[in-house]
Amino acid sequence: MENIKNFFYPKSICVVGASTKEKSIGYELLRTISNYGYKGIIYPVNPKADSVLGYKCYKSIEVIDGQIDLGIIVVPKQFAEESVDSLLAKNVKSIVLITAGFKEVGKEGEEVENRITKKVKDAGARLVGPNCMGVINTLESTKLNATFVAEKPETGGTGFLSQSGALGAAVLNSLRETDIKFAHFISVGNKADINENDLLHFWQSDDNIKTITTYLESFIDGENFVKPIITGEVTKPVIVLKAGKTSSGMKAASSHTGALSSRDQVVEAVLRQFGILRVNDINELFNTAKGFENFPFPKGNRVAIITNAGGPAILAVDSLEKENLILAEFSEETKNELKEVVNPEGSVMNPVDLLPGATAEVYRKVNEIVVQDPNVDSVISIFVQPVMVDPFEVVEAVYDINTDKPIMQIDMPLPEFWDDYRKFSKKKLPIFRNPEEPAEVISNMLYYSMAQEGLKDHREEYAEQFKMTGKGKFNFKPGFIPQEEIFSITSYYNIPIITQTLIKPDEIKNLNDDIYPVVLKGINHEVIHKSELDAVKLNIKTKEELIARADEIISNFNRFKFDVEQFLIQPYIEIKHEVLLGGFRDPSFGPIIMFGTGGKYVEVICDTAIRSAYMSDNDLDEIIEETVIGKILKGIRGEEGIDMNKLKRVIRSSSKMMIENENIIEFDLNPLIISKDNSIHAVDVRIKVG
Amino acid sequence: MENIKNFFYPKSICVVGASTKEKSIGYELLRTISNYGYKGIIYPVNPKADSVLGYKCYKSIEVIDGQIDLGIIVVPKQFAEESVDSLLAKNVKSIVLITAGFKEVGKEGEEVENRITKKVKDAGARLVGPNCMGVINTLESTKLNATFVAEKPETGGTGFLSQSGALGAAVLNSLRETDIKFAHFISVGNKADINENDLLHFWQSDDNIKTITTYLESFIDGENFVKPIITGEVTKPVIVLKAGKTSSGMKAASSHTGALSSRDQVVEAVLRQFGILRVNDINELFNTAKGFENFPFPKGNRVAIITNAGGPAILAVDSLEKENLILAEFSEETKNELKEVVNPEGSVMNPVDLLPGATAEVYRKVNEIVVQDPNVDSVISIFVQPVMVDPFEVVEAVYDINTDKPIMQIDMPLPEFWDDYRKFSKKKLPIFRNPEEPAEVISNMLYYSMAQEGLKDHREEYAEQFKMTGKGKFNFKPGFIPQEEIFSITSYYNIPIITQTLIKPDEIKNLNDDIYPVVLKGINHEVIHKSELDAVKLNIKTKEELIARADEIISNFNRFKFDVEQFLIQPYIEIKHEVLLGGFRDPSFGPIIMFGTGGKYVEVICDTAIRSAYMSDNDLDEIIEETVIGKILKGIRGEEGIDMNKLKRVIRSSSKMMIENENIIEFDLNPLIISKDNSIHAVDVRIKVG
Repeated sequence: MENIKNFFYPKSICVVGASTKEKSIGYELLRTISNYGYKGIIYPVNPKADSVLGYKCYKSIEVIDGQIDLGIIVVPKQFAEESVDSLLAKNVKSIVLITAGFKEVGKEGEEVENRITKKVKDAGARLVGPNCMGVINTLESTKLNATFVAEKPETGGTGFLSQSGALGAAVLNSLRETDIKFAHFISVGNKADINENDLLHFWQSDDNIKTITTYLESFIDGENFVKPIITGEVTKPVIVLKAGKTSSGMKAASSHTGALSSRDQVVEAVLRQFGILRVNDINELFNTAKGFENFPFPKGNRVAIITNAGGPAILAVDSLEKENLILAEFSEETKNELKEVVNPEGSVMNPVDLLPGATAEVYRKVNEIVVQDPNVDSVISIFVQPVMVDPFEVVEAVYDINTDKPIMQIDMPLPEFWDDYRKFSKKKLPIFRNPEEPAEVISNMLYYSMAQEGLKDHREEYAEQFKMTGKGKFNFKPGFIPQEEIFSITSYYNIPIITQTLIKPDEIKNLNDDIYPVVLKGINHEVIHKSELDAVKLNIKTKEELIARADEIISNFNRFKFDVEQFLIQPYIEIKHEVLLGGFRDPSFGPIIMFGTGGKYVEVICDTAIRSAYMSDNDLDEIIEETVIGKILKGIRGEEGIDMNKLKRVIRSSSKMMIENENIIEFDLNPLIISKDNSIHAVDVRIKVG
Repeated sequence: MENIKNFFYPKSICVVGASTKEKSIGYELLRTISNYGYKGIIYPVNPKADSVLGYKCYKSIEVIDGQIDLGIIVVPKQFAEESVDSLLAKNVKSIVLITAGFKEVGKEGEEVENRITKKVKDAGARLVGPNCMGVINTLESTKLNATFVAEKPETGGTGFLSQSGALGAAVLNSLRETDIKFAHFISVGNKADINENDLLHFWQSDDNIKTITTYLESFIDGENFVKPIITGEVTKPVIVLKAGKTSSGMKAASSHTGALSSRDQVVEAVLRQFGILRVNDINELFNTAKGFENFPFPKGNRVAIITNAGGPAILAVDSLEKENLILAEFSEETKNELKEVVNPEGSVMNPVDLLPGATAEVYRKVNEIVVQDPNVDSVISIFVQPVMVDPFEVVEAVYDINTDKPIMQIDMPLPEFWDDYRKFSKKKLPIFRNPEEPAEVISNMLYYSMAQEGLKDHREEYAEQFKMTGKGKFNFKPGFIPQEEIFSITSYYNIPIITQTLIKPDEIKNLNDDIYPVVLKGINHEVIHKSELDAVKLNIKTKEELIARADEIISNFNRFKFDVEQFLIQPYIEIKHEVLLGGFRDPSFGPIIMFGTGGKYVEVICDTAIRSAYMSDNDLDEIIEETVIGKILKGIRGEEGIDMNKLKRVIRSSSKMMIENENIIEFDLNPLIISKDNSIHAVDVRIKVG
């Protein structure tokens, strides 16, 4: 951890490749470090220069006399490895390799990258990059902007990790317009060593960080990204913008379950399951981070809207619905108090309409009245600038209110306002620009706090399951496992596979009387299309009928010169619903379970939900209820539901099978039949081992 | 039309209520008109002032000697009516009533508003408002900003109508940051007279307008909003931001069809059906308008992406999928030409990665090569500002390319760039700020041009149906119509309702032989629960069986001391699929048809599509294919489909029934059964008349 700390809090840094040439990265980086006012010692290294930007220049790393906390390399790629060597020789334990041209350009680059990474690891050091944009710490004690974007970021409480240097640069370029504030920024590039999982732990341990934000194009190890969040090692809000979606299923998958899901759905489902916020764009990423840092948490989903203008309020109301929030219903007391303040031609109902003339004082009073209503969990206060009211006064008056509920303001002023606000505002709390934004933020905050509660309640359940990982006793050969083994594993895990009895034709008479109704199938290993030979008889109700039907099958076979070698007897089940239950192993997030509508139309019906196989009881309820078939099975419109506990037990035991037997890469129960008497039967089970 | 023209092109205007008091609307409005440089004559009216802002002031409207093209009223509401009277007396035919406090505040206000509207109409004049924010014409010949937002909008080719004054004000406030440009702006307020339908026609006729944009909270008459677009009277792109969504179904509706749809779904479906673009927020509204005004139309959905930065390009690729666009596959020729220009460590595949060092010259050449590839329909060129390249040069070089395909640029520069661009750019074409925006715009433009083609091809079909509106011959009493009438109307419209034969018990023997299989039901008017008496027999295959089952029913009834009064005989249908087909009359958009999965789970399955009942053959295909059940019926996974033409005929004739009989307010065929032999049967038909 100490070595990671030095990326953000170095007392001395060495810039290998510092340059005197303007617009070169080696020059710009040093200039940025210098301009932003770094508080430690800078050692520029350049064999050909005596000084750069007024700093004394060192000919080589060796000649530096002093401790180097952080080495930053910006040399051309052919010199990168030797620079790493020299830093390691100098006992530097934290290295940022900004230089590009490694794994991302091909095989040769990959080899060099691997060599460098090995050397770093062997030396007990840590490496950021290569192919990255550097690191920033905005905190007063360090003030390090070791990137080549010459902005001077303001201090906030967010940690921001970007897998793309360019996206990081784009965000940095926009800071003065977006008012994004962070404590730490790190561009991790190729993630040869340091990756998002390291940063989760480090930022959790750093008291300067309140919120963890990431832009990711891939997860280095999804299972270990979510695990510390499940176990409670990481409790700070984690917000993920994950790019690189693709709708193409896992083409190679041979099961329904695999083919029906995409890698992106897995990401979506697993992050959601464990309370990690996945956002859709950069704007939502930082709006949400601003929410976490600057406002108290909402305790519920009831929102009050205050406005001086109809249209934007209607758009805000629309956004509530989209975000699963509701318009609060004010108490009579609140309405009466509002009547004292609000223009009689306005409205004291929610949304409260103050009309364009409303002053800063009216805004303050109305917000104060509304926020203390016990039926209100959050307030959105909207102000569109009319000629006669100063937006700055309104915004300051409302953000001056002390409350333990979030009040978020939307301001639609003339452009002059923003500079004034940045300069003169007392609290400088975030102001939103679009009527749709606060609902998104409130909803994200609410989701996070509810998910945290859920995780706390179920932590032991998850822990139990983690313990069982790989503890399974079944060892199968790769490929689809044969029928006998399916019987043995499904019976071990209590998966209700339908019983099948294979008997010789002359044993028919010896069958018990309590097996009816049954299905009878004639088998000859040469006969594949049973229906052509009329070899399947359904719903046989008595022994007499069974014998008669068996004779029919035998004579059918004989007519085509076949013998009946064996009869297969199964209970006859009248289908009421067909369910799909399956699982597969995601290369990053591990065992995944899918539940939904089964049968032959699965591809078009697309009624499935997925979760990590590590499931709490609550996750089991949710995976079922997220689907249409789940709602139907629970019972709707007066129709009796099935025993949901039985269904949950089947899902639970299938998950257990996936967790315990890590060699199972896919399984598929399609259909899992719900019969007319509401019992559950697996009729077609496929399990693939890798 | 002349009177509407005068709202935008008046040669003289009269401001009734001009004030000398700063920050009052009467003062600010006049000041804005003056500052923006109105080219005509201004007559301020104020009984108490000699001059306002240097303009000679008139004591009353009467004393003005000269033609007044446009009267703008900003007096307090108690003087509004007399101001209108005076303007009408002066023969002013175009009046903007900015004053608020009418219909929107209650009954009294509504009465005054109605009175004013009647007077205006009687005088052959037109009224904008009340409760509105005024009008703007940015064109050089007029230069009128008759609102109280003191901005100086730049000239563009968009007409923008806002039902909310405040939303209009918010947009005007933001102009300098968003670079939105329009020709005309109109705030229609309460829409007492002038509304969106008037503006559609006016802007279609005005050559200065290329694109029509609207923010609406309600449609004054949806049927007549879409009709001119269907008939081809209005061909310019119409973009609608419709606020005020609600998920609550039409609670009062008594049918499935009604309860399953919301007003907002109707808006969504009908606008889409007729090629009107519905957007989700203000940003998309104006981005799309910018697209229409400044770029050629894409001819297909294949997009090339050019970038100097990975992350933003990946986000752009993600956005393609969301918008139903695809990444173009370059020809070998293109790839070879790109190799000459692109950095060898970059990529000549799509997305083309130029790496951060790419200069303006590289950007120009690469865009030129890519845009001429026949496999490319549009280009998105992304630039994230690195230290060493000037964003202004890149943007100018790319927008200098002459091509008949759209090239849209995303720029992520330092904030300084924007002012430079606004001042010095040659073409001042729009630049997008987020990686997701251009895909949305390209998709909207493509949708519009495809929809226009579709409308052209089907114009006659629609015209035929318009002619039939209200020409139906059925006159029913209000309420659910009785069974006999259902038979008569469904047989007239060829809706395949299942045949039912009622016979006396002794007539059983006389039935024809070609009716089997059938269902037999015993009827006694006192017996309601047929199943208790075992009064229903399914799947009877022969006459002998029918007679035997009839005897069984008779004896069952007798045992409970009932007679069988009649037998009901229906064909026996084995259900394969249950479909829902229904219709209802939307108060604004008229007859609406719904198609989807039927049966008892409709509320949870939610697999329905809706359309205006005025449908082209193509609309019929689409309403079917939009649903899961439609895809299944068409035939999937080797399963034979049903005769789709038969299904389309049933939907068509139901639509015809709704169109021709305007007293039908709802109908419901649920389920419409698709039998195992793929035939279609309506078994439960409900028709409600209003």
